[in-house]
Amino acid sequence: MALVLYELGGRNDARYSLFSWRTRLALAHKGLRADLKPVRVSDKAAIGFSGQGKVPILVDGERVVVDSWAIAEHLEDHHGGPSLFGGAVGRALARFLNAWVDRQIVAAAAPLIAPEVVEIVDEADAAHIRAGMEKGFRTTLVAMREARAAHLAEFQRRLDPARRTLGAQPFLSGDAPAYADAILFSVFQLLDPADAPTVAWHARMLEAYDGAARRAPARAA
Amino acid sequence: MALVLYELGGRNDARYSLFSWRTRLALAHKGLRADLKPVRVSDKAAIGFSGQGKVPILVDGERVVVDSWAIAEHLEDHHGGPSLFGGAVGRALARFLNAWVDRQIVAAAAPLIAPEVVEIVDEADAAHIRAGMEKGFRTTLVAMREARAAHLAEFQRRLDPARRTLGAQPFLSGDAPAYADAILFSVFQLLDPADAPTVAWHARMLEAYDGAARRAPARAA
Repeated sequence: MALVLYELGGRNDARYSLFSWRTRLALAHKGLRADLKPVRVSDKAAIGFSGQGKVPILVDGERVVVDSWAIAEHLEDHHGGPSLFGGAVGRALARFLNAWVDRQIVAAAAPLIAPEVVEIVDEADAAHIRAGMEKGFRTTLVAMREARAAHLAEFQRRLDPARRTLGAQPFLSGDAPAYADAILFSVFQLLDPADAPTVAWHARMLEAYDGAARRAPARAA
Repeated sequence: MALVLYELGGRNDARYSLFSWRTRLALAHKGLRADLKPVRVSDKAAIGFSGQGKVPILVDGERVVVDSWAIAEHLEDHHGGPSLFGGAVGRALARFLNAWVDRQIVAAAAPLIAPEVVEIVDEADAAHIRAGMEKGFRTTLVAMREARAAHLAEFQRRLDPARRTLGAQPFLSGDAPAYADAILFSVFQLLDPADAPTVAWHARMLEAYDGAARRAPARAA
């Protein structure tokens, strides 16, 4: 059955949505292929069929699944291939890690990433993203860029538990990557890892699944 | 084979060591019994046999295992009973959660807990703990108590990913508690949970394993 994944698209085919990257790697983990449809973030009409306004959206035959976590569970429960979670406890703890990345890590990464994103999307999307970020953070993208060193220090501080874990094992999921690794990896598609354990893990993730992440441009060329 | 667990002991048989509580619940999870030996924190000589100065220490026949995480892995690998981790991915992600609790949650909880601990230990231990905490935090226990509201707000903020997770599932480990739950639960042995999802989970943890945590005094009577 054909799978279709709607994800954010920028100029030069950049695919910069952190959350869509989680789904990309989940598909790669399970050995599944999907037709990848880029969506402009300012073009809500293109995904109106899903009844909401965010990507990723996975269309699996008659089913329309939104939200990257729900998509991961859908893939685990309705498709074969290697497990994304390694059992019930692994799934439950991956949900915790998902919440940690979304609430602590993405929040700290946003002021680092936003000024980059506006450079790789078209003009309408750049205006849309700039307005949303400047309203949400009550500051300008210029000010975010100027405060980059402080934002980076806070991001690194919050990343500490992952750094500790990756100092003791090659992947967050153990000896091999699984969905928890895709969750954290997504943040680094627009941000370079800066310390040894995370750099080494990031390199392993780029090569995982036959180089699935390395071969596709998250940033514009 | 006889198991012996060395853990911190206070006045009135209070057993207040967060890290020892992780081991207590790991033993309960596996249906194992241990001889529980209280140790004064100022009495390093009592645990000199272990070659280091911290509890918990598990003595399992000829083996002496230190560090709560290493003890959990030892119990999983060398004893039967229900799994603490639910497989390799669950173990790897529990290690991440262990790092998150130790580095982010315990660090934020320490200024809330330290002023309570000195009330439930004997005088020599209170002096020892006060000196250590005041040196580590570069402030006095009195000042910690006065800044309690600010410390509590920071603790609650850091707890957010657990709160989100426990809003979606009854335990961090899913439908039933496992070692990841013991890790976070340990922090609440000297600190009351304050928000609905965590309060409900905490109540479930007190009843788990035949009320193992409810029946033993973490605080002094």
